[in-house]
Amino acid sequence: MVKFFLMMKMDRKIDKPLILVTNDDGITAPGIRALIEVMNRLGEVVVVAPESAMSGKGHAITINSTLYCDEVKIDDGPQREFKSNGTPVDCVKLAVDQVLHRKPDLLVSGINHGSNSSINIIYSGTMSAAVEGGIEGIPSIGFSLTDYKWDADFTAAKHYVEIIAKKVLESREHLPLPFILNVNIPAIPLEQIRGIMVGRQANAKWIESFDKRVNPHGREYCWLTGEFVNFDQGTDTDEYALENGYVSVVPISFDMTAYHLIDRLKKWNFHE
Amino acid sequence: MVKFFLMMKMDRKIDKPLILVTNDDGITAPGIRALIEVMNRLGEVVVVAPESAMSGKGHAITINSTLYCDEVKIDDGPQREFKSNGTPVDCVKLAVDQVLHRKPDLLVSGINHGSNSSINIIYSGTMSAAVEGGIEGIPSIGFSLTDYKWDADFTAAKHYVEIIAKKVLESREHLPLPFILNVNIPAIPLEQIRGIMVGRQANAKWIESFDKRVNPHGREYCWLTGEFVNFDQGTDTDEYALENGYVSVVPISFDMTAYHLIDRLKKWNFHE
Repeated sequence: MVKFFLMMKMDRKIDKPLILVTNDDGITAPGIRALIEVMNRLGEVVVVAPESAMSGKGHAITINSTLYCDEVKIDDGPQREFKSNGTPVDCVKLAVDQVLHRKPDLLVSGINHGSNSSINIIYSGTMSAAVEGGIEGIPSIGFSLTDYKWDADFTAAKHYVEIIAKKVLESREHLPLPFILNVNIPAIPLEQIRGIMVGRQANAKWIESFDKRVNPHGREYCWLTGEFVNFDQGTDTDEYALENGYVSVVPISFDMTAYHLIDRLKKWNFHE
Repeated sequence: MVKFFLMMKMDRKIDKPLILVTNDDGITAPGIRALIEVMNRLGEVVVVAPESAMSGKGHAITINSTLYCDEVKIDDGPQREFKSNGTPVDCVKLAVDQVLHRKPDLLVSGINHGSNSSINIIYSGTMSAAVEGGIEGIPSIGFSLTDYKWDADFTAAKHYVEIIAKKVLESREHLPLPFILNVNIPAIPLEQIRGIMVGRQANAKWIESFDKRVNPHGREYCWLTGEFVNFDQGTDTDEYALENGYVSVVPISFDMTAYHLIDRLKKWNFHE
């Protein structure tokens, strides 16, 4: 009985929110190090992230090969960290099933080096990790800075990451689940950011082109490249927010049903 | 002028619908061979598919390594075929930008060995290829048979693939774009299938578990496994359709905005 009360007391003592951190740029990327720094101020932090860059891995999972997940020490912070050869989504699954002993109060993914606004969400490992958190019933946020550079300035991003993560943690008892946010921060100085704008995913896409080359053995290969085009004139989109100096917040769903087409398709006579 | 009219005539002669075929089980999988057989009856077929299995690759694209795409001859059919080391989504991008000289009238992906109903759409390379087709403005259908076996019986699947693809091709002038269908066919004999049911993605998920092992060098690794759990009691879902012997048709959207949360989030005071 004494033991039981002691445990209760200990539990109360460490009753900080449990925060799972991941990304797709790899566990040593400056973006995730900035995210860990902020999260250490808000709760008990556990990092499970890819050991190498996993950009563009979307919602890929590792079925046909093996997964490693090893504890590592990268800096002097209080967080525990694990690196894996898996994708960002694998990292979330490993964290939930293998590493953590209770469901985290929050999952944060990023800070991504580069925008994940509009259609980019579907290709992004960072956002797919957040979506996987949502599927697992964890309030989840993907953070991205619209600057692809490795040495990007995360000062303004850290400011808004803390505001938004704190608000989600404070609201966590009353959040409608699944709860997933796609947060993009414009790469401009903090004092130029005009605030936070909540909106929808813009209708935009990449127009691909392939850079064709010949390898030293004479075989043709190519690199995927492309140009981002925004078809959307709306003033309620993530692209509009970013272009106008706002931090963009888009709530995300993993129900991909196109509900507006169901009635139309029900009227189709497939056998006529 | 004579030359011009000659060309017009030739174009009319070959005015069959152009159909792009891909999958995620690899270009030699029985499922895609069955799909090609059916599509050759409906139009001019070009196949661009992964050279090896890409199950679970989701919407992954290849950014950090090189892509190959080589013409191959696999059987005696009239189709042209290309295999790539890329993901299913890469194959669609390669097809649209590098292989085809006009936008195809239809993209079909599959026939997948195994179900892609409910949440599986988000992990599935087969469905991600169809979604990428939708992003490109191509009417696109992903077909899956609820039987994982390599030697699964595709007889009933082929019957319904033809009915649905024919209907989409006939309607192609009037389809609302983006137009993406997720079609799942139950693995039961044709005469037991009760018809086609149009519905929504069921609320279901995988509960992961990891099969832990030790490699010959003493290092711990694991395999991702899991159990599929359907939380959805609805009678309008893809899972309900399949359980009741129907072919399930779900229209798909790549706008992942959770519209129902926008107003709620707009009321948040992030700075309070």
